[in-house]
Amino acid sequence: MALLSVLTPVLAVVLCLVLGFMLLKPRETETTSTTARKTEDKAAHSRPWVDQDLQDDTEITATEEDAGDWVDNNEEEDCQHVPYSPPRYPEDTMLQRSKDFYTLLNQRRSVRFISPEPVPRHVIDNVIRTAGTAPSGAHTEPWTFVVVSDLDMKHKIRLIVEEEEEVNYRQRMGDKWVTDLAKLKTNWIKEYLDVAPYLVLIFKQTYGSLPNGKKRTHYYNEISVSISCGILLAALQNVGLVTVTSTPLNCGPQLRVLLKRPANEKLLMLLPVGYPASDATVPELSRKPLDDIMVHI
Amino acid sequence: MALLSVLTPVLAVVLCLVLGFMLLKPRETETTSTTARKTEDKAAHSRPWVDQDLQDDTEITATEEDAGDWVDNNEEEDCQHVPYSPPRYPEDTMLQRSKDFYTLLNQRRSVRFISPEPVPRHVIDNVIRTAGTAPSGAHTEPWTFVVVSDLDMKHKIRLIVEEEEEVNYRQRMGDKWVTDLAKLKTNWIKEYLDVAPYLVLIFKQTYGSLPNGKKRTHYYNEISVSISCGILLAALQNVGLVTVTSTPLNCGPQLRVLLKRPANEKLLMLLPVGYPASDATVPELSRKPLDDIMVHI
Repeated sequence: MALLSVLTPVLAVVLCLVLGFMLLKPRETETTSTTARKTEDKAAHSRPWVDQDLQDDTEITATEEDAGDWVDNNEEEDCQHVPYSPPRYPEDTMLQRSKDFYTLLNQRRSVRFISPEPVPRHVIDNVIRTAGTAPSGAHTEPWTFVVVSDLDMKHKIRLIVEEEEEVNYRQRMGDKWVTDLAKLKTNWIKEYLDVAPYLVLIFKQTYGSLPNGKKRTHYYNEISVSISCGILLAALQNVGLVTVTSTPLNCGPQLRVLLKRPANEKLLMLLPVGYPASDATVPELSRKPLDDIMVHI
Repeated sequence: MALLSVLTPVLAVVLCLVLGFMLLKPRETETTSTTARKTEDKAAHSRPWVDQDLQDDTEITATEEDAGDWVDNNEEEDCQHVPYSPPRYPEDTMLQRSKDFYTLLNQRRSVRFISPEPVPRHVIDNVIRTAGTAPSGAHTEPWTFVVVSDLDMKHKIRLIVEEEEEVNYRQRMGDKWVTDLAKLKTNWIKEYLDVAPYLVLIFKQTYGSLPNGKKRTHYYNEISVSISCGILLAALQNVGLVTVTSTPLNCGPQLRVLLKRPANEKLLMLLPVGYPASDATVPELSRKPLDDIMVHI
């Protein structure tokens, strides 16, 4: 009984500590809400650059306030309106143009075997210019295209990407690892990151700056930049260049720091760009027929 | 002292309950993690269709497992590889093609004044086919394009979108509401939803089905479908049609039910499509110059 009496204050202290911990906990949970962020958070202890990315991650999923047209914002409303009359084609021309463009883009494939041959720089410039014509939420144009042709920088990028990929594959494989090593090795070796004449790293700007110095949230920045990537892929295909769409999420923070991009920018995609290698192959895949992707009402 | 002795088992029970609660809590937090979901959750009490959407929202932000190339998946690896040799253009042709494509797409603008004139159905089919050539995470092709030309259905869509827009504007304006009514009214009236010959509603499939009946998560479905939208916008511009990019997030669930789409599909964009009206105007906006969007290393 005396022992129990002695235990009482101890239990009371433990209870207070536990309750205090619970009250503090929810706040932490809010800032590390998504699975991805939890993963990053876990990594943050050993990787200092991730902290900065977390601090500045003000990206916000759309709320009630920002639904609707992307042109529906004050800046555009204050803007003068001008007549708009793009070229109009006769119906048979439209049909032919729609067929030709489909034929062109239907030849596009993700290609991992890229030729080291140089590609004219002006062509790349025009491809990036074209990507920059995409629409964006409130016309924020929240994209930065980092075009890397420097051999040393390409190699540094490769090392970061391969290190992360190796971690992914090792974790994924678990016990099967040792036996399947030889087969798997090809999966995390990204030779094209050294070989391709250009690496295009596409960053989304999650926020901008207002004149008063405050942050301006870039709504829909990921969708906007992804649309821009779609146009970029079309522009590459149009000039006979190839790429493979990759989203190296886990190495984004390291690559951002390597490329000296500010904290409001996050890597969305990494595209190695060049001519296809003369012995390039692609998986024999087909695309869904129109009836599987379109419903007409 | 006797009182303390009596309190000891009580405190011990309370401590156990609190610890048990703490252990259960994290699991709940994971399922309602994003801000958007919280917002939807709040709305769910008054909007029954949202519940179904929430139940089936298995969209997952990318984890360690799915980083890297989008072609990097078992299905593609098991696939036979075939040679790939797309057309190769001489350098001056490449340069000219890159300029022409930039000129074409730089003419694209978001247009809200759409002509009611009919547009050939086959052109729309080819535009959707072209959008379907986009790359997607693990080649899941996680998109459904609902093309609406039915007058009655277009009007129903308009009513849903306008109702949500009105709510948004009223909430946004607060007290300024009454005085600014006349000016603002134009903001939530979307006449083009009745007028445009086609409304294209683009759904992302957040998951698919595995042969064993289980759900297959579609990683990167939003990025994939957004890329597809970028290609769709290019295809529209290529045939002289216009649209305005809109992301009517709040009415997504209602529109999904109206259009009888399954619960794994979520509305990403709504594009009214047609020729521009003869008196169409656009805000006098400019795009960032190349140096502001591109960094060369």
